[in-house]
Amino acid sequence: MPHFTDALAAAVIARRTPVCVGLDPRWDQLPAPLAAAHVDSTAGRAAAYLEFCRGVIDAVAELVPAVKPQSAFFEELGPPGVAALVETICHAQKRGLLVILDAKRNDIGSTAEAYARGMLGRDAAPWHADALTVSPYLGEDSLTPFVEVAQERVAGLFVLVKTSNPGGGLLQDLVADGQPVYRHAAALVERLSAATVGECGYGLVGAVAGATYPAQLAELRAAMPHTWFLVPGYGSQGAGAADVAGAFDDRGLGAVVNNSRGLIFAARRSPYAERFGDARWQDAVAEATRDMIAEIGAEGGARALR
Amino acid sequence: MPHFTDALAAAVIARRTPVCVGLDPRWDQLPAPLAAAHVDSTAGRAAAYLEFCRGVIDAVAELVPAVKPQSAFFEELGPPGVAALVETICHAQKRGLLVILDAKRNDIGSTAEAYARGMLGRDAAPWHADALTVSPYLGEDSLTPFVEVAQERVAGLFVLVKTSNPGGGLLQDLVADGQPVYRHAAALVERLSAATVGECGYGLVGAVAGATYPAQLAELRAAMPHTWFLVPGYGSQGAGAADVAGAFDDRGLGAVVNNSRGLIFAARRSPYAERFGDARWQDAVAEATRDMIAEIGAEGGARALR
Repeated sequence: MPHFTDALAAAVIARRTPVCVGLDPRWDQLPAPLAAAHVDSTAGRAAAYLEFCRGVIDAVAELVPAVKPQSAFFEELGPPGVAALVETICHAQKRGLLVILDAKRNDIGSTAEAYARGMLGRDAAPWHADALTVSPYLGEDSLTPFVEVAQERVAGLFVLVKTSNPGGGLLQDLVADGQPVYRHAAALVERLSAATVGECGYGLVGAVAGATYPAQLAELRAAMPHTWFLVPGYGSQGAGAADVAGAFDDRGLGAVVNNSRGLIFAARRSPYAERFGDARWQDAVAEATRDMIAEIGAEGGARALR
Repeated sequence: MPHFTDALAAAVIARRTPVCVGLDPRWDQLPAPLAAAHVDSTAGRAAAYLEFCRGVIDAVAELVPAVKPQSAFFEELGPPGVAALVETICHAQKRGLLVILDAKRNDIGSTAEAYARGMLGRDAAPWHADALTVSPYLGEDSLTPFVEVAQERVAGLFVLVKTSNPGGGLLQDLVADGQPVYRHAAALVERLSAATVGECGYGLVGAVAGATYPAQLAELRAAMPHTWFLVPGYGSQGAGAADVAGAFDDRGLGAVVNNSRGLIFAARRSPYAERFGDARWQDAVAEATRDMIAEIGAEGGARALR
């Protein structure tokens, strides 16, 4: 029986890196020639986002195991944006990448199941995602419908546990029964993941744990031995390779580290702006991605992949 | 300056009821003649959902102040489903209803802002919603972008505080610093709402508080004097009029009570099935809605509206 997390582990081993490229298109940061080729309307922006994301995917397809489209930027454009997102997902899969859709969905019972059936599953779901981020505030009966569909569809989940933003602590760091709330969420996720473990040793139910809290990331790695991590916050949110070093097991597995703006808009920042500029923006994306792969591979558990 | 919650209060007073009709289309529960008229494909189902929701809206437009489409059932169908949702929202507004989009979105910073700009605002947003449900696990800096866009766009929010499902307590009922987590979320919401208060005395940032926990609902009413409640769980989730009685202030304001399946699929259950059947399903919806309006109006604070 194929298993999403086994496929993710195999892809990380094959590309020798846990780097995940975040697809967060923003109209005002697109390469100038690309933006100029499209009308500034919802449909025009959606077409530009699709062209941009295809370009990013083509630049990194042979370098990384996965991409993470951020649903919000596509949804911002309404129905044409959602259609562009679906085409982006399918293009990434055609290019051999796994796709983690960052949509932070959450609901209960048959409503959660509707989200799961719509989004989870490369072949069966209209959104075609290989994996989906979900939010845990509604509790276990809000997660189990997603888990059941993920099992059936050979897909995966990443549940928000300890997020990368400064305000995340307001609820997540509250201490109850001697443990912060994020550890209660972590215990639920680890239990669900231990029940769905694949040959790689990790289950289908991953956790989102921010790179901006390295101590908690290492603490969670120890507390959640069956849980694969999706680690946001690298790059523009301020975290570096040393901060994510504790996310990996001694094989270099157990985590993917996402970077969005730092990679896809590399042509807008030094040193890539000077070397490539907007005209060669895809080369800038590839070079920034290679640089991040080298950084991550130089420290901590991910060295085992090199 | 017009204000979403003032508009909601005015609509509740005009219709003399706080009943909100939930639009949760499900293919296998559609009236038989309507389902038979559409192909069973994602595009066919989306067309059937739009026709069904238009029919529900036309049946209740003069009875209630608001409808609450559940985004998941539309999103399940991919891009054609999202297009049907947007058309459903616009039709409800054309018929004089306020639209609370139940999509439980959540993210941080500029990503949260992208959701807000895409969804919030009758005129400016591609999704056209008057209000949106959001999830609070990511903390205050995940809510403020939604609040800012809501203020700018004359729109509203409903933040998950104490949800109606049995598993909601896993995180929400954990006690930290002498208060359950849902009270910490409530304190944040009340603060944001007190800062955006309208002439009706309520702010733009409402709370989702389930009818299935009546004691907590009354407790939250006392603790959140500036916060309008969206109350799910009535009907098929087991709660009745006595359970929601504590949600209102002494003017009968401060809450809308949602019922989805119990109203929109009334033609499938007794006594409406016998009286109307599938052929007169819109009459069944209208009659079940009138019955719920009478039930809610007979008990607690909502009596003040009669």
